[in-house]
Amino acid sequence: MALPKGFLVASANAGFRKQDRDDVAVLVSETPCAVAGVFTTNVFKAAPVLECQRLLAEGKEIHAVLVNSGQANACTGEEGLKRCKESKRMMGQALGMDADSILPMSTGVIGGQFNMQLWEEAMPKLMQNLGKKDEEHFTRAMMTTDAFPKFGARTLELSGGTVHFVGMAKGAGMICPNMATMLAVVLCDAKIEQGLWQKLFVQAVDVTFNRVTVDGDTSTNDTVLGLANGASCVEVTEADIPQLQAMLEEMLGSLAYMLVQDGEGSTKVIHIEVHGAKNKDDAEKVARTVGHSQLVKTAMYGRDANWGRIVAAVGRSGASFDGDAVRVSLCGVEIFAKGQPTEGNHDALLEEPLKQRDVIISIDLGHNTAEGKYTLLASDLSHDYVSCNADYRT
Amino acid sequence: MALPKGFLVASANAGFRKQDRDDVAVLVSETPCAVAGVFTTNVFKAAPVLECQRLLAEGKEIHAVLVNSGQANACTGEEGLKRCKESKRMMGQALGMDADSILPMSTGVIGGQFNMQLWEEAMPKLMQNLGKKDEEHFTRAMMTTDAFPKFGARTLELSGGTVHFVGMAKGAGMICPNMATMLAVVLCDAKIEQGLWQKLFVQAVDVTFNRVTVDGDTSTNDTVLGLANGASCVEVTEADIPQLQAMLEEMLGSLAYMLVQDGEGSTKVIHIEVHGAKNKDDAEKVARTVGHSQLVKTAMYGRDANWGRIVAAVGRSGASFDGDAVRVSLCGVEIFAKGQPTEGNHDALLEEPLKQRDVIISIDLGHNTAEGKYTLLASDLSHDYVSCNADYRT
Repeated sequence: MALPKGFLVASANAGFRKQDRDDVAVLVSETPCAVAGVFTTNVFKAAPVLECQRLLAEGKEIHAVLVNSGQANACTGEEGLKRCKESKRMMGQALGMDADSILPMSTGVIGGQFNMQLWEEAMPKLMQNLGKKDEEHFTRAMMTTDAFPKFGARTLELSGGTVHFVGMAKGAGMICPNMATMLAVVLCDAKIEQGLWQKLFVQAVDVTFNRVTVDGDTSTNDTVLGLANGASCVEVTEADIPQLQAMLEEMLGSLAYMLVQDGEGSTKVIHIEVHGAKNKDDAEKVARTVGHSQLVKTAMYGRDANWGRIVAAVGRSGASFDGDAVRVSLCGVEIFAKGQPTEGNHDALLEEPLKQRDVIISIDLGHNTAEGKYTLLASDLSHDYVSCNADYRT
Repeated sequence: MALPKGFLVASANAGFRKQDRDDVAVLVSETPCAVAGVFTTNVFKAAPVLECQRLLAEGKEIHAVLVNSGQANACTGEEGLKRCKESKRMMGQALGMDADSILPMSTGVIGGQFNMQLWEEAMPKLMQNLGKKDEEHFTRAMMTTDAFPKFGARTLELSGGTVHFVGMAKGAGMICPNMATMLAVVLCDAKIEQGLWQKLFVQAVDVTFNRVTVDGDTSTNDTVLGLANGASCVEVTEADIPQLQAMLEEMLGSLAYMLVQDGEGSTKVIHIEVHGAKNKDDAEKVARTVGHSQLVKTAMYGRDANWGRIVAAVGRSGASFDGDAVRVSLCGVEIFAKGQPTEGNHDALLEEPLKQRDVIISIDLGHNTAEGKYTLLASDLSHDYVSCNADYRT
């Protein structure tokens, strides 16, 4: 148990998904939290996403997060929003808290309405074990088809003393069968001003969770929350910001890595490192075109040093560059330069490196810029991916 | 044999690919042709693409097309361009024609240099059967992993008399293992002014070949050529344009359909029809996001009426619309409207329709516009696709 000070967790089986494991959890902070939130950009936002956005926009005092798996409560219309609020009302009543102090998160099948009877029955179960569960229980309760729970704890020495963090995430693509979402929560007992926390958090999400892809499908429920409750009584000063920022990026980065590692059917984590682009946008275009290319993803799965597919993806990315100036390396071996393959037996050189889980594709577009960089983590595309996503009903 | 007047074909086995079938072919017109050409937008353009673009830009008189499969002559640098020209020099010499009157096309493995000995040995074989082969032989010589040859003939009654067309195409994705390209040639014996022919042709390509996707990977060699040699002595008049345009679209459309039908591992042709978008660009964004979604493609393969994946893809497309105004139908059954699933047992209603090869996804974004339309044909994503593209070396 490594929960930061002042946070309590409970989890229970409500029956949303399977009978044999927890699918609802709540975490509660005695003191109100500085809250940072980053949400899906999908036009079809799930009811819990809309509710979180409302609570944060209205500046409500936040004390708790209520999560369920099994039902996404997405594409459920007005009725879905009503049932989301009703579940929070029940939880608030049980905890003796204002329902508006509870942020909701949901993941699971899109389109179905909550069974409120199941929510009602779950409330006493949650209250029975509040404070007896930890971050692993919370993480497991939000898993859908994830193969393993993704969480981690960190400690940071600030000028005013020691503060603690835990990060918890779920997600393995837009997930099978018909499941959705990545969710993540970071807890921290530091005392930090709301606006600064949000700013640091958004920056960290941008270089971590926003730089991974399993299948390119942005879900309707994606939510990343950061809760800092100040229970350590250690205040974050101006001088603490750089190390706090570095730690947030490192912790969210490790959770993001685990999402790709656990991507549906994934056998590889492909690190796509682009540099020498005209600007960051171009670098991102190249990284995403390569990272979403089915041909590149199947080649990596097949351990095939297939540079032609990488180069063809770079060429259709829409980025601006001189083809003759492009250099491509795979696992440290330069395989393409000056518009043609380099000398050497690529297959022999790459046979061993391509058996590893981590594979690095490095692409230099040849511009002499410092800012034209982008790194993306992508999963590969395997038989199991297709099975996971197609074999549901056949 | 349905070749339009004045065109001759030869084909031969040069040994670029396999010993048991033709991999090089030439077609020759006695009279010079009005030529229309549409080429890949990939930055890394293959040597034959660069050569075609040069010949058309310089307004050379075109009499012939020389095609090979097995080697794409892409990413081969200056040396690749030199060898491309050398193959044309040999062919020109054999035919007694200027090398600059011959358009080259290549498809196959990216990165390898032509073996000029094989080209030299192929020349007498081609000359022996010139005029004894037809459009099917030409089409077969440009096949790589295509499962079947894609060609067809059409006749058109113009005001001045009858003219004939044949269309020939190859392609099954950016093709396995490591193969590339879609190629297509349309022959016509009508007499038509070069500029008009190019204009009509580009319009037809835009609504046919540019609206299909197997894997979203634009190859380095894509080439579509139209050759009109005037041998029928029937001139295309102003009044003939509408029916000529309609026929071109119909013929190229049927070839484009066959490309998707023969997509790697493909079991479905998914017709994605978007309407009610704010404008055509938005409609295209939605169609391409849905058509490239791995989750939608695997659902169609699995015959799964998984509207949540379609709606989630629409929502992340970047198009501008009101989510509550969106309507989605699958095979004619409305499954999503007003932000939530429609009433009815979708699975039962769609069980039979989803077993068919042709599946229609219709998406209305709710804007009252005439121009906000786009239709895209996409293949599904199957186990065989992954096998085809990953199992090459393992």
